[in-house]
Amino acid sequence: MTDNAPVTEHANDLLITRLIPASAHTLFRCWTEPELLKQWFVPRPWTIAHAEMDVRPGGQSLVVMRDPDGNEYPNLGTYLEVVTDQRLVFTDAYGPGWTPADKPFMTAIISFEPEDGQTRYTALARHWTEDARQQHIAMGFEQGWNICADQLQALAATLG
Amino acid sequence: MTDNAPVTEHANDLLITRLIPASAHTLFRCWTEPELLKQWFVPRPWTIAHAEMDVRPGGQSLVVMRDPDGNEYPNLGTYLEVVTDQRLVFTDAYGPGWTPADKPFMTAIISFEPEDGQTRYTALARHWTEDARQQHIAMGFEQGWNICADQLQALAATLG
Repeated sequence: MTDNAPVTEHANDLLITRLIPASAHTLFRCWTEPELLKQWFVPRPWTIAHAEMDVRPGGQSLVVMRDPDGNEYPNLGTYLEVVTDQRLVFTDAYGPGWTPADKPFMTAIISFEPEDGQTRYTALARHWTEDARQQHIAMGFEQGWNICADQLQALAATLG
Repeated sequence: MTDNAPVTEHANDLLITRLIPASAHTLFRCWTEPELLKQWFVPRPWTIAHAEMDVRPGGQSLVVMRDPDGNEYPNLGTYLEVVTDQRLVFTDAYGPGWTPADKPFMTAIISFEPEDGQTRYTALARHWTEDARQQHIAMGFEQGWNICADQLQALAATLG
């Protein structure tokens, strides 16, 4: 009960993982500093119109995505666990003050682990239902998250 | 985005609140130390057969309730937010490693606020659906949590 349970795959999980030639610290910064996150968090030519985040358990994030026609799509999240330079867990299941969301969709576990002088970057999306998982696949989870990981990797290369 | 949102009532909430003549520190201890929790956490003549808790965001709690016939009922929870002597937030929506639970039922926000030399004790249960809220009412939320609060208050009086 006192150890962190290992993150193993569960039936309703989706996952991407890759080795990135950057430090865990740099990747963590790209995930938690709004000005950095804006540069990679959505597949281009979409952009991030606005990003703010209160990175602590119970803190909120607001990321507004903008499509090429200028339509904006706000995404709200709540951080569940923050381990600097190692792990970030967040969900859409809660609004501010732990208010239950109308439709809890997923919980994301982003991890950064040193491996062979690089960083093993893993983005795991856990869903409460198989329907939500299938919906995420249909929304292009694998392609979308991989394009973003490419953009993250390119940005990290400029940060050293 | 950077402040805690106030805990206001939401359509799917259930709540009990009372002033208790004990310190917030003592009440927080009664909620987080297994040997204390065992003495008040279930209406007598039920008992707590076993309690263990890893009190940090992402940590698990296991509380096994025992009915007068000796049948045991394990309850698993995950802590979401821990503010020593002030607030404790936990849910059944996750298992170890942020695994989604089969049936997310509720999130509890327990708060301890100094008021007139005593402590305002509030137990708020937030549900994702109105059905879950109705089920909790049918399970005897109000009577059960008030009996437990009586037992908590009596225990706190012995701790000073």
